[in-house]
Amino acid sequence: MSNGAERLLETLVAGGVEICFANPGTSEMQLVSAIGGNDRMRPVLCLFEGVAAGAADGYARMCDKPAATLLHLGSGFSNSMANQHNAKRAHVPLVNIVGDHATYHLKYDAPLTSDVPAHAAICSGWVGVSQSAAELAAAGARAVQAARRGWGRIATLVVPANHAWEEAASAAPALPAEPLAPVPEASVEAVASALGNGKTTAFLLGGRALREDCLAVAGRIAAACGARILCETFPARLQRGAGRVAVERLPYFADQVAPVLAGLQQLILVGAAPPVSFFAYPGKEGWLTPPGCELLTLAEVDQDVAAALETLLAAAPSERAPDTAQLQDKPAAPSGALTPLALAQSLASLMPDNAIVVDEAVTCGLAMFPATLGAPPHDWLTLTGGAIGEGLPLALGAAIACPERKVVALEADGSAMYTIQALWSMAREGTDVTVVIMNNRSYAILNIELARVGAGAPTAKTLSMFDLSGPDLDFVAIARGMGVRATRAGDAGAFHRQFAEAMATPGPCLIDATVVQSSD
Amino acid sequence: MSNGAERLLETLVAGGVEICFANPGTSEMQLVSAIGGNDRMRPVLCLFEGVAAGAADGYARMCDKPAATLLHLGSGFSNSMANQHNAKRAHVPLVNIVGDHATYHLKYDAPLTSDVPAHAAICSGWVGVSQSAAELAAAGARAVQAARRGWGRIATLVVPANHAWEEAASAAPALPAEPLAPVPEASVEAVASALGNGKTTAFLLGGRALREDCLAVAGRIAAACGARILCETFPARLQRGAGRVAVERLPYFADQVAPVLAGLQQLILVGAAPPVSFFAYPGKEGWLTPPGCELLTLAEVDQDVAAALETLLAAAPSERAPDTAQLQDKPAAPSGALTPLALAQSLASLMPDNAIVVDEAVTCGLAMFPATLGAPPHDWLTLTGGAIGEGLPLALGAAIACPERKVVALEADGSAMYTIQALWSMAREGTDVTVVIMNNRSYAILNIELARVGAGAPTAKTLSMFDLSGPDLDFVAIARGMGVRATRAGDAGAFHRQFAEAMATPGPCLIDATVVQSSD
Repeated sequence: MSNGAERLLETLVAGGVEICFANPGTSEMQLVSAIGGNDRMRPVLCLFEGVAAGAADGYARMCDKPAATLLHLGSGFSNSMANQHNAKRAHVPLVNIVGDHATYHLKYDAPLTSDVPAHAAICSGWVGVSQSAAELAAAGARAVQAARRGWGRIATLVVPANHAWEEAASAAPALPAEPLAPVPEASVEAVASALGNGKTTAFLLGGRALREDCLAVAGRIAAACGARILCETFPARLQRGAGRVAVERLPYFADQVAPVLAGLQQLILVGAAPPVSFFAYPGKEGWLTPPGCELLTLAEVDQDVAAALETLLAAAPSERAPDTAQLQDKPAAPSGALTPLALAQSLASLMPDNAIVVDEAVTCGLAMFPATLGAPPHDWLTLTGGAIGEGLPLALGAAIACPERKVVALEADGSAMYTIQALWSMAREGTDVTVVIMNNRSYAILNIELARVGAGAPTAKTLSMFDLSGPDLDFVAIARGMGVRATRAGDAGAFHRQFAEAMATPGPCLIDATVVQSSD
Repeated sequence: MSNGAERLLETLVAGGVEICFANPGTSEMQLVSAIGGNDRMRPVLCLFEGVAAGAADGYARMCDKPAATLLHLGSGFSNSMANQHNAKRAHVPLVNIVGDHATYHLKYDAPLTSDVPAHAAICSGWVGVSQSAAELAAAGARAVQAARRGWGRIATLVVPANHAWEEAASAAPALPAEPLAPVPEASVEAVASALGNGKTTAFLLGGRALREDCLAVAGRIAAACGARILCETFPARLQRGAGRVAVERLPYFADQVAPVLAGLQQLILVGAAPPVSFFAYPGKEGWLTPPGCELLTLAEVDQDVAAALETLLAAAPSERAPDTAQLQDKPAAPSGALTPLALAQSLASLMPDNAIVVDEAVTCGLAMFPATLGAPPHDWLTLTGGAIGEGLPLALGAAIACPERKVVALEADGSAMYTIQALWSMAREGTDVTVVIMNNRSYAILNIELARVGAGAPTAKTLSMFDLSGPDLDFVAIARGMGVRATRAGDAGAFHRQFAEAMATPGPCLIDATVVQSSD
């Protein structure tokens, strides 16, 4: 007879879960064995749990369906939690399978014993603990269903080792997906009515509303009524580039948001939260909607955003709005100093159609975003939850989700180091990822933030805590050490040539780009 | 006037906290600035929070006093939690300073918002949340006091950003250390009486009882009454080697524990928990004390173990027991295949007096421990909580605690990759650490465990999940990428030469040792 682990695996694949980003231990051996015996589940070994969770997030952003992770007790789960946080903020579906000690072994408080459900509760939308081997598969079906609630939830199933190895009679059928929550008619009517009131208006789009189909509808509505289209600061997946409806992305620094929102009389939220400051700063306002600007909500992030936009289009003042497609902008090859802007020029001129850009370039990324507005159509994925260390894992997961698409990971040197182990899985899986390390030898963002929070004149010791030189990080050596071919670029010309070769050559590679902030 | 952060720093150093392993973010900028302005606090920048927590653990194991960590909200803390778990199981003192959003900013649920106290509660013995800038310093004093309770606790202080930047009139004086809980007289009397009852007896030592002073006393007692001295499987810090009282370390695998304990009629616990299996296995017993063997407790892990042993010595049948010191064993230089045993021979013959060995070599470490019994006196630090990924951080912290001592980190390839970023801090701080990577290109322990849990005949796909080749990890390249000089050893002779050079040369280095399990 099959065991609980095998029945759980049958249940997961029946529910459409086909990839498992895994970092298992002894208590997951039957689960590993069950994966090894199941033709429809692909395991992707990760050398650190944060890689597994971030990759599952990247996979889900691109596929709109859950991957599984396989993690080892509370400590394994805690290593994944920063990227679980990012995944939660990205509203993706994700099924965590977390092994625990056999139920009867917990009382001994062996060294690795921890409260696994307490770990899971912190970042999961659904937590289940299997009650028996016979019931494990049904718990798995509930986990998959829970992960698919709304646009996505993190569902974490805790599997005591004995439930994996004891006999189980049958798998569980997939449970029906719950429909998306519809947008109340009154919300649509209120927005439709507001669009005709002559006020200065902007839409603020987030979540699912940033996909091409929704953007096209939003673009027609906005053009018809003269409204602007804003985009949340950290979108999970923004479809942009030539031919698509362009959006104005809200800046990261609150000071820069104020001029963007100045003069607005109404702001219509579509799958986005009201704009707030990422951090608080002494004496500055954290709530960024201008005084006197009315907030209306067309659709909340977990509602049927697409249907709401279609309904609004039908009710809007004009159905025959002109298209507002972004024009292609193919800049010339840059030369001279390797600034973020020069890097962005190479991207815009060399990226193939339909690339996926993962942006964890922090300070450098802020400059590169506007400069790639007219690049060939692409998806732009960002750090939704602000927990640094997701860029490389996201790129791994996106590449596995979309093997036919080129993935470009824009990584700051500091943030790259949190989950640098992702490079090895990129090589192992033959993913088509080009990693660009923006190497400025510092936590540059913190030098800026230090001044912004008014922390006074820094001492040399203070500044040493943002300094990543002494020793310099050599990402070419680090990448080669994990099986990824790598080159170094010290000026814009060298970068352009190396990036062109990367775009022309399948498989993972890394460019260690020594960036400077300006060309002076 | 000073701000809350500055007053907190004054308070920490007044309480004897002088090192801060830091990975800060925006919400900790005033704390960074306060460290930068305080002459008595040394910051050690870590590129990942798991490095910071593991290094603080290593520092505390060697200094018997707390280091601080500086971490960034819930996500930063979660990245440190696996090594917080190990530190908790090592019973060390540790003070975590975790920044949070300004109190009035939490309501906006900005992207990085999380429940920081909930994270902290999972692995901390004490959690405090600052209530105001004026009160922050006093909360810091309570954290230091709490960290020093018993042999040590993890104390986590959550610092909202505004409490760090708002004005605070004064620092807080250090609070008095609470005395160790004394061992009840009845416990000592019961054990003293049992020692004369003629039963086959062993002591099981753990925690503080494994330091040289306690071992010397235990050795005299045991010799006088013909008892054996056992040591818990994963000691935080075992002082051993030539001239010290030798102990029999309990094996990792439960099957191997049974013959060690067979025939015992009484087992006396001294700062150790009763032996249990690390994991449960189908159909096997997890409780390892043999049937009929009586368990007595001389002292619990958090009690005054040293005093209890002294009292017992005075009450024991004979006060004039012979010394049972380990003889020195200086093996010849090995040659041929690079087995764990050959590696251990090089260690035993080349390690200087008073080295610190950090053992996260997993399968390889199990073989090296007995083979270094007669090495020059040294401290052996292990993975107390079983959460893989602490070896390199522990070595970093131990080296900073004891700059005059050589540190040897025995690392498995798989476990090294969890917190490989520690290499950079080793280089930056000029630590005297020699890292030996036992590179067998696999999670070898899981191949063994797979068979032990009876998970059936593995498929190629199953085995791929333990395989670290394809691509091979090149630790020489990875180390050089982080500024650590490195060499590769493919046989015992090469390793011996490289290790001899490492012992003769100060500063961090790494040897990527291609190990085989036997010389056949």
